[in-house]
Amino acid sequence: MEGAALTRRGLLVGIGAVGGAGAMYAAMGALGLAPSEQDKQFAAPRPGDFSLSGKGAAKVVILGAGVAGLTAAYELGKAGYDCTLLEAREKAGGRNLTLRGGDRLAELNGPAQDVRFGEGVYFNAGPGRIAPWMVTLDYCRELGIPIETFVNNNAAAYVNTNGRTVRARTARADMYGYIAELLAKATNVGALDRAISKADQETLLEFLRRFGDLGPKHRYEGSERRGFTKYPAIDTGTPLDAPGTLHQVLAAGTGRAITNDFGYEQATPMFQPVGGMDAIVTKLTEAVGRDRIRTGAKVTKITNLADGVEVAWEGGGLKADYCIAALPPHILAKIPHNLGAQVTTALGTPIPVAAGKIGLEYGRRWWELEDRIYGGVTETDLDITHIWYPSHGYHSERGVLVGYYNTERNAELYAALAPEDRRRRALTQGKKIHGDKYRQNLLSSVSIAWDRQPHIQGGWVRWPDFDSSFTFLQRPAGRVYFAGDWLTHLIAWQAGAMESARSVVTQLHQRVLQSA
Amino acid sequence: MEGAALTRRGLLVGIGAVGGAGAMYAAMGALGLAPSEQDKQFAAPRPGDFSLSGKGAAKVVILGAGVAGLTAAYELGKAGYDCTLLEAREKAGGRNLTLRGGDRLAELNGPAQDVRFGEGVYFNAGPGRIAPWMVTLDYCRELGIPIETFVNNNAAAYVNTNGRTVRARTARADMYGYIAELLAKATNVGALDRAISKADQETLLEFLRRFGDLGPKHRYEGSERRGFTKYPAIDTGTPLDAPGTLHQVLAAGTGRAITNDFGYEQATPMFQPVGGMDAIVTKLTEAVGRDRIRTGAKVTKITNLADGVEVAWEGGGLKADYCIAALPPHILAKIPHNLGAQVTTALGTPIPVAAGKIGLEYGRRWWELEDRIYGGVTETDLDITHIWYPSHGYHSERGVLVGYYNTERNAELYAALAPEDRRRRALTQGKKIHGDKYRQNLLSSVSIAWDRQPHIQGGWVRWPDFDSSFTFLQRPAGRVYFAGDWLTHLIAWQAGAMESARSVVTQLHQRVLQSA
Repeated sequence: MEGAALTRRGLLVGIGAVGGAGAMYAAMGALGLAPSEQDKQFAAPRPGDFSLSGKGAAKVVILGAGVAGLTAAYELGKAGYDCTLLEAREKAGGRNLTLRGGDRLAELNGPAQDVRFGEGVYFNAGPGRIAPWMVTLDYCRELGIPIETFVNNNAAAYVNTNGRTVRARTARADMYGYIAELLAKATNVGALDRAISKADQETLLEFLRRFGDLGPKHRYEGSERRGFTKYPAIDTGTPLDAPGTLHQVLAAGTGRAITNDFGYEQATPMFQPVGGMDAIVTKLTEAVGRDRIRTGAKVTKITNLADGVEVAWEGGGLKADYCIAALPPHILAKIPHNLGAQVTTALGTPIPVAAGKIGLEYGRRWWELEDRIYGGVTETDLDITHIWYPSHGYHSERGVLVGYYNTERNAELYAALAPEDRRRRALTQGKKIHGDKYRQNLLSSVSIAWDRQPHIQGGWVRWPDFDSSFTFLQRPAGRVYFAGDWLTHLIAWQAGAMESARSVVTQLHQRVLQSA
Repeated sequence: MEGAALTRRGLLVGIGAVGGAGAMYAAMGALGLAPSEQDKQFAAPRPGDFSLSGKGAAKVVILGAGVAGLTAAYELGKAGYDCTLLEAREKAGGRNLTLRGGDRLAELNGPAQDVRFGEGVYFNAGPGRIAPWMVTLDYCRELGIPIETFVNNNAAAYVNTNGRTVRARTARADMYGYIAELLAKATNVGALDRAISKADQETLLEFLRRFGDLGPKHRYEGSERRGFTKYPAIDTGTPLDAPGTLHQVLAAGTGRAITNDFGYEQATPMFQPVGGMDAIVTKLTEAVGRDRIRTGAKVTKITNLADGVEVAWEGGGLKADYCIAALPPHILAKIPHNLGAQVTTALGTPIPVAAGKIGLEYGRRWWELEDRIYGGVTETDLDITHIWYPSHGYHSERGVLVGYYNTERNAELYAALAPEDRRRRALTQGKKIHGDKYRQNLLSSVSIAWDRQPHIQGGWVRWPDFDSSFTFLQRPAGRVYFAGDWLTHLIAWQAGAMESARSVVTQLHQRVLQSA
């Protein structure tokens, strides 16, 4: 319960909801909020905002119809801004890309792939999950996009490290068991007497018994939490073999895998739109107006003027009052502009990160039928890094596994292969975890190497530091604003693109309202 | 990977699927499987089984159309057994009870409640979740019941203990942080030198840094895993206040809550049928045939005969070849029978356990809108014990919270209250966690005290020991078989009822096949 802060924010959001941005900014002043706190609030522009100021909505050209560009156009559109989106790719959405049967995926320096999935099956080639605190979920609600759970943590999934495969529940039970035993031992020999009181030691020991499922004398001797060969029913079931020694458990190297969901970005539960992540693109596009998006328009020049911005693309050009450049920085950096050397330097600072995924379509959901894995992720130190099991379509005929979701060097390794070799390698690796069935019942596959996607050329970017280049580009250069997940601390998340768009929309709208 | 065991079992299941139970039993003999291993397998009876033996399906009377009785009838029906189910209540399902607007819930020694929920809203008054390894999920698949995730663990839900409320993610981060710090400290002062090698200590310390998100010198100084007042976006966000001291964190008493999903029964993910748990009852009933279920039939006498079983109820009676008594033991114990003193004693051994739930219908899903809690459970040491947030209907208008789900003394406390007083008390308690909004926007409520449900009179039972009475009743008394979750190690789970039914069906079918 965050108490006072929540209440004040709640009040402001309420004022914003009822009275629009104008009323909210006024209220923020009345409450004595520092400007920096304004970032915490977002009130969408409304037509009514102009009635106070006597100003009118401006004309805005938006470069890139990814999630950032679409969100900016959507929010500005609420107040009647005249937005045009220029998208170099054949369709809107950017990295929010859901592939289905009949789609064709082009690749730089590689062959195009035809997606051969059957009816009702899809593959989120880009973002696949949403944390509940993220603004992405607000857009799902506002746009009427039904959501469902994305299983990000599954006790029945596997951990495959150092060549051994165990269920996640087993790996966790063993690590927790031994940790609890060791700490109980240290407590009982008096090693913590200077650190904590005897009474606290008793509380700690009680917790450790529970945490590690310790036996008599605080020993870890295995636990039913590890799972069973045959689960209890008529009888008490058949437990797994006894756990390895502490040395063996430590050597297994499962630590990274079993702490994977501890962070605020990956914690359980997570969510996904029903039917594919691109529902967000579809609904934003509908709300913005399909006719406002010009696809196949590769921008060639950005010119900031005293009274507007001129943007040229191959085969056209337009002038608008403002521009929002919602392209990846390394793509934007290649476009000639007159925004100054500091912009050029700043755009050149973030480093593209490779990321890749493969969708493996099976005609039989063996992971449910045989492994009892319903959604979730198997973690491995193999170069495939992860296997994702689908969190939807349970018990249906077909299903698409994500056979790898890797980054950096592993992604580059797969990117360098032809699509059929990526599949072959992914199957060889997955077989080490799942056995022969991993190569059986495979119907089709499609792989994406984000660093080879036209006009995107990277999974996301990494800032060496969140330095002055980062904050510099959070503000406009003349009449040109910059937007994208790469300008937030939510890089690689759609929420970052949306938050960045909101920040730019707020700045731009305030400027229009305050302009002479 | 369970290797050999899985393979042999897979083979048998395959034989069972293709050749039916008769072929499978033969194969088990050929493989030299001990009889005890037969419990691990289930092959449903088939009409073809009789063609080998020259026998025919028998007539079976089943007492109780709860999940055990329905499952037995369903499986026997596959081979053409002539089953009649006698159900004392007004409808089938037993404790698998989903309440919707228009339903009326009777109560022993208490007023009936009219359920006033709006359209599309429901309340699983009995079982609410299914673990993926449970046979319940197989029935969902076989019966074509769509399933969805039941969120059983939510980092954003609260832990309310000793009068304080924190997010589960915060409680967990603090406990893990301090545990890791303490164990690192013990390691670094050499307290574990005799227990583990120096090399293993290094591996352990690396894990502890990750596990506790420790800072320099292995100190826990808080972590972004605790959550934020404002999550990162344009800036790095506003973290929560610093964690309490180790003493404060231990004194907070969150240990039980944060280990709640460690066991194999409660581990993430769990599942529920789409639209309400009673989809299982509906589909089983359809498969069995509605006309085979006689409701309002309270059994008054069970007579085992040399050539069959006679069952009498208020207003009728019938004779069948076999009987399956699928009633709670304490209900069955009250019915006169000629099955002998050992049966009477055994039926009197398990002790009914009180359990209660309240469904609170709100006109606004404030837990999603304001608390960003999408499904999951808040754990508390208040007498309400749990608050469940719905794992479906996200972002819709209405929603039903489970305002308490408690057992034993807490359940008895609420059971003794009138329905409006249960609601009042539940709201008073929930307000301590959620504040005033917990009492606002409430549209209606309905509460169940399972110990006061006619013909059920308990949430489930507890065996003082799983002693000879337990195993005795797993075998027939004459021609009378006993079935129910109470005869398994999955008490209080539908899977227990189903596994028990399968065991009885297997025994009965083998007997019929082998009978002279």
